[in-house]
Amino acid sequence: MEPFISKRDAAEHIRIARHRAGISWAQIAEQLGVAKEWSTAALLGSHALSAQQANLVKELLDLDDAVAEALQMQPYRGPLSEDVLTDPTIYRFQEAVMVYGPTIKELIHEEFGDGIMSAINFQLNVARRTDPEGDRVVVTFDGKFLDYKW
Amino acid sequence: MEPFISKRDAAEHIRIARHRAGISWAQIAEQLGVAKEWSTAALLGSHALSAQQANLVKELLDLDDAVAEALQMQPYRGPLSEDVLTDPTIYRFQEAVMVYGPTIKELIHEEFGDGIMSAINFQLNVARRTDPEGDRVVVTFDGKFLDYKW
Amino acid sequence: MEPFISKRDAAEHIRIARHRAGISWAQIAEQLGVAKEWSTAALLGSHALSAQQANLVKELLDLDDAVAEALQMQPYRGPLSEDVLTDPTIYRFQEAVMVYGPTIKELIHEEFGDGIMSAINFQLNVARRTDPEGDRVVVTFDGKFLDYKW
Amino acid sequence: MEPFISKRDAAEHIRIARHRAGISWAQIAEQLGVAKEWSTAALLGSHALSAQQANLVKELLDLDDAVAEALQMQPYRGPLSEDVLTDPTIYRFQEAVMVYGPTIKELIHEEFGDGIMSAINFQLNVARRTDPEGDRVVVTFDGKFLDYKW
Amino acid sequence: MEPFISKRDAAEHIRIARHRAGISWAQIAEQLGVAKEWSTAALLGSHALSAQQANLVKELLDLDDAVAEALQMQPYRGPLSEDVLTDPTIYRFQEAVMVYGPTIKELIHEEFGDGIMSAINFQLNVARRTDPEGDRVVVTFDGKFLDYKW
Amino acid sequence: MEPFISKRDAAEHIRIARHRAGISWAQIAEQLGVAKEWSTAALLGSHALSAQQANLVKELLDLDDAVAEALQMQPYRGPLSEDVLTDPTIYRFQEAVMVYGPTIKELIHEEFGDGIMSAINFQLNVARRTDPEGDRVVVTFDGKFLDYKW
Amino acid sequence: MEPFISKRDAAEHIRIARHRAGISWAQIAEQLGVAKEWSTAALLGSHALSAQQANLVKELLDLDDAVAEALQMQPYRGPLSEDVLTDPTIYRFQEAVMVYGPTIKELIHEEFGDGIMSAINFQLNVARRTDPEGDRVVVTFDGKFLDYKW
Amino acid sequence: MEPFISKRDAAEHIRIARHRAGISWAQIAEQLGVAKEWSTAALLGSHALSAQQANLVKELLDLDDAVAEALQMQPYRGPLSEDVLTDPTIYRFQEAVMVYGPTIKELIHEEFGDGIMSAINFQLNVARRTDPEGDRVVVTFDGKFLDYKW
Amino acid sequence: MEPFISKRDAAEHIRIARHRAGISWAQIAEQLGVAKEWSTAALLGSHALSAQQANLVKELLDLDDAVAEALQMQPYRGPLSEDVLTDPTIYRFQEAVMVYGPTIKELIHEEFGDGIMSAINFQLNVARRTDPEGDRVVVTFDGKFLDYKW
Amino acid sequence: MEPFISKRDAAEHIRIARHRAGISWAQIAEQLGVAKEWSTAALLGSHALSAQQANLVKELLDLDDAVAEALQMQPYRGPLSEDVLTDPTIYRFQEAVMVYGPTIKELIHEEFGDGIMSAINFQLNVARRTDPEGDRVVVTFDGKFLDYKW
Repeated sequence: MEPFISKRDAAEHIRIARHRAGISWAQIAEQLGVAKEWSTAALLGSHALSAQQANLVKELLDLDDAVAEALQMQPYRGPLSEDVLTDPTIYRFQEAVMVYGPTIKELIHEEFGDGIMSAINFQLNVARRTDPEGDRVVVTFDGKFLDYKW
Repeated sequence: MEPFISKRDAAEHIRIARHRAGISWAQIAEQLGVAKEWSTAALLGSHALSAQQANLVKELLDLDDAVAEALQMQPYRGPLSEDVLTDPTIYRFQEAVMVYGPTIKELIHEEFGDGIMSAINFQLNVARRTDPEGDRVVVTFDGKFLDYKW
Repeated sequence: MEPFISKRDAAEHIRIARHRAGISWAQIAEQLGVAKEWSTAALLGSHALSAQQANLVKELLDLDDAVAEALQMQPYRGPLSEDVLTDPTIYRFQEAVMVYGPTIKELIHEEFGDGIMSAINFQLNVARRTDPEGDRVVVTFDGKFLDYKW
Repeated sequence: MEPFISKRDAAEHIRIARHRAGISWAQIAEQLGVAKEWSTAALLGSHALSAQQANLVKELLDLDDAVAEALQMQPYRGPLSEDVLTDPTIYRFQEAVMVYGPTIKELIHEEFGDGIMSAINFQLNVARRTDPEGDRVVVTFDGKFLDYKW
Repeated sequence: MEPFISKRDAAEHIRIARHRAGISWAQIAEQLGVAKEWSTAALLGSHALSAQQANLVKELLDLDDAVAEALQMQPYRGPLSEDVLTDPTIYRFQEAVMVYGPTIKELIHEEFGDGIMSAINFQLNVARRTDPEGDRVVVTFDGKFLDYKW
Repeated sequence: MEPFISKRDAAEHIRIARHRAGISWAQIAEQLGVAKEWSTAALLGSHALSAQQANLVKELLDLDDAVAEALQMQPYRGPLSEDVLTDPTIYRFQEAVMVYGPTIKELIHEEFGDGIMSAINFQLNVARRTDPEGDRVVVTFDGKFLDYKW
Repeated sequence: MEPFISKRDAAEHIRIARHRAGISWAQIAEQLGVAKEWSTAALLGSHALSAQQANLVKELLDLDDAVAEALQMQPYRGPLSEDVLTDPTIYRFQEAVMVYGPTIKELIHEEFGDGIMSAINFQLNVARRTDPEGDRVVVTFDGKFLDYKW
Repeated sequence: MEPFISKRDAAEHIRIARHRAGISWAQIAEQLGVAKEWSTAALLGSHALSAQQANLVKELLDLDDAVAEALQMQPYRGPLSEDVLTDPTIYRFQEAVMVYGPTIKELIHEEFGDGIMSAINFQLNVARRTDPEGDRVVVTFDGKFLDYKW
Repeated sequence: MEPFISKRDAAEHIRIARHRAGISWAQIAEQLGVAKEWSTAALLGSHALSAQQANLVKELLDLDDAVAEALQMQPYRGPLSEDVLTDPTIYRFQEAVMVYGPTIKELIHEEFGDGIMSAINFQLNVARRTDPEGDRVVVTFDGKFLDYKW
Repeated sequence: MEPFISKRDAAEHIRIARHRAGISWAQIAEQLGVAKEWSTAALLGSHALSAQQANLVKELLDLDDAVAEALQMQPYRGPLSEDVLTDPTIYRFQEAVMVYGPTIKELIHEEFGDGIMSAINFQLNVARRTDPEGDRVVVTFDGKFLDYKW
């Protein structure tokens, strides 16, 4: 059998290869014609690319065949290790969910009734908002409301 | 010494009292003249109210003195139990951070350099966006960018 | 403020009260005119009853007012303790998910593409199937397919 | 000694090899003449294949001898990592067991008395049910009832 | 509603009451006409007594009505805390399972094929075997073999 | 230095080599002239073999020198991973200890006084007991009683 | 026996009583004639007060006798719960130890050789440093170097 | 693709290479013209070096290209394993945070109001203070105060 | 039924009562005519006192009947919480076992062969050794060697 | 760069090499002229050897250069895995600390006041004490008392 690598290892290859190639995540997204949030998530292992998309990325970043193949495999989305969750940049989002989780829950129920925001029919946006007191990171979680429905 | 209760127990009192009084979280916020996200978080124990705000809530929801006092105490913001984090409405945000955490991290670094979104100089917004295919929950995390600065 | 109890404590009251009253879960469901799976879940704290439903149950099981009120509160669905998950009757389902989880995942993706079975737009059925070699428990998880959709 | 690989690594080989061969799980099952749920579970490491079955799969997917041998080894069924359990597609089943576990338990006891559904004398079915509001995933757990019997 | 107590608290009552009454576990079993292993497990919360058995124990140990009622409730068998598992007398059994678990597994598979020993259709025996070098504790786990059967 | 392997890896080699050689655990025990429970535990890493025993096994199973050497090393008996403990065949023993642990403890204390069953001066037996309703697995834990003795 | 309370509960009493009395931690320290870091730690349960100090605090904050007694008991210093460690104000110190722990270790070894900073022969200082870009929190850990010495 | 290594593995290379080269952390810092705390943290993986800095270190310590490249990658700052946190030299800082965490929190709030010390706009100092009773390790955490600001 | 308390709560009563009575642990041991290590362990819940011993302690410390009764109950020795294990005075022993555990293991095996030091047939000694550089705590663990013996 | 190995891997090499060389831990200590407890701990990774000591051991045990180098590196003392702590020979020490920890704490405080036994200015002794009823393992923990001193 031909050699292969896991999606998790592929993500490591891609981070290095992008650094070497000096191409931004946004430029890759532009080449693929998709949102930068989606393509970055896909390249880091959370979505599957089509064969065509994978080949385009392979060219751009000078990747091995096995990496391009891994990008097309159906993802296991769970495997973000505990360790990664303590990275300060990611942890602040965890902290916000811990501190404001019940608030979000109460306000969703008040506005929509009993149910949840989908994390599947979902999109993410990461943006800069300029502010004289220091620019701000604005991250939007936008998911379809799903009501508990027997 | 007079009896007292913890902020966590106060939050339980308030959830029931609000249900009994038939007042919405948004109406309480309006009475207090603040964002509904802030006041709900405060009433659930994540921010301290001023004495005046606490008394206003006490009147509105017919609370005991000890509850009104608890609302003014400096919060410990950590104590959201593991159990609460598995509530499906809250868990979907955890899941989004697990699935998209590295994506958010890469895009913040690409846009701003090395640093984080503050979860302190921070505000939250929970809103509805109507959509013909089903309305959407839009939750925005908006925090000041802080760069690693020695 | 009037005394109140948590939904978790209310569930304990209800288990005992049902035992004392000698009424089956199915009979309660019949009185409420809903599926026995839904009403049992609601009485154990995973769904909210309407005021009318809560009063009907209060009569049937001779409950205190605080219990009837707790049944109407919006649930936190997470708080099923680790301890409960090791009960042999519940653990077998955990074990089945551990042993067959990746199988279920592959077959869902093969049939539907990338996505999940909703646990919100979802219903449960617990039934007996007679079998000469010993009757069988048949538990059906029936949830809407949700595809990853950006 | 000849080289060998673990069942867990064999499962990774098979996922990739199936992708390369462009054969569905259902087609493999058909070739083996067994239920697709059983064969998929076996190929992912939860059941042992006979030598004949293993060879047939080896041909179909162009596998190494060591992989075919691993498929015949007696499985350790536990090693599904915590990480995998947080994959959204699998987690929804975990969540359903957490939210509805006590309900399932009460209804099994009401129908059958004290005991459990076997996870050994057990079969799984994963199916599509068409529905105008969106097709549904229907997963059935069907196990023999075992009563506590001293 | 009448007061009630949990099975776990009932077990604490019974341990003290038995100590006060100066009656052995074996004598209670004899009064109930069952194996001492079964009745001790039942009194500590792992099996349900019939109403008649519960009343007999109530008389013997001078228990409150709520305790006798708790003994008749369907048990949740999971809630043995981590703490209890570290008691040296119980831990030695944990240790034996940790050290010899794979051995037991291999020998069961060699003798019976793929399957398990039931912990439901199961009985336990705790006995003394006299030995000139010091008497021995002999604990027997005796459960029906269940084969993996699709 | 010559290459070497760990006892844990040696156990993996031996499981495969035994499968290839088509020799049973009982036959290996017979060749070694010891109980099958002891030799299986030793080959899986829980006891040390003598040099003579290790060589005999090396011949029987066609093992590498490094494996035969690993079998003679003093074991670390702890390293049975969490994952292995969830294998259904092993987990049933865990479950029995969780469900009946306090029962075993009370009955040991009633029969012997304060103390424990040794897991060191200990032997294990795994046997089949035929039964018209289905054969039974009978596992006996037989250890010297040790009393708390200052 | 007279009623008593734990040091942990005493700490809760003191936080509320201080809030009611409107006295600062620094003022209490001044009354006791000790560093504010030491007295605050003592009042929150990490050091024992003398009887004289405890009585002085009892007067200042209008405490019950049981609280004053608890302040004199030898502390168990461990019981800071996981929950408290996730409070953002405390977590930042955890994070700094996680991110810079190996750096601190290397630099201590380079400067002092193999050993540790004592956390027992230790003092803490919390101070403000004014800064035109925003004032800074300066926390100093000052402990005796202890070298590994056989 | 060219081979690469992770920042974590790079840190291991650097610890050994520094030992072989006989150069101190402080000398490396001097060469780079930065604080020794910053450069040590960077070399151990907590900050990114510029290409120029990385090359200078590569020369000094005779490193491979892949190591020099890893030093320039954006860090994941979380991955300090549990194991490392139990090293006695690092654990004493953990212990100080556990024992004095609430004290630090109260004093920060008293001095600055509700908020935190930043761990991002932050600097660390590790120094020796001579003392006749034994020299002392003085570690200073110096971070900008951030107030909760909606 | 008469009221009763757990051994764990009894230990809390005794710590306070001893403080109030101003009697040392050593004096209690002397009154009981046993080693101070044994009686302290017994009073904190790790051994059972005889009725006579319990009454003597009850007189000495002015305890309630329920406390004296709890002291006579058979202990569960496990329930020392995680929190207690992080108390610095106790943690240093944990740390010593973590750092030197494999050393102790190798030296026991070298001196005695394969086996363990019993923690049941065991005694503890805590003593002071005067030393001009500062007195030393000397804690001796003295247990019978038990060899692995089938 | 030259190849290198970690101290943890070096410890594995040494255990095997010592077995092959047929030299006891005590003999190695004698060659080094140090206590057997210190040298064994050092060879297993808990202390650093000098270059001279490392070379002497390299000769004695026929080790690779990388192993000899690893022995000289500053240790991280934390990395004793959970698995190792469950080895029965090591676990008995854990158990003794769990069962007798509070006793040791109370007796240290009674004898010395508030403080700890140092685990740094510390030495260990492992010895045999002959006894007609079976020889005993005597392990002594001997550390300097450190009082809480601000």
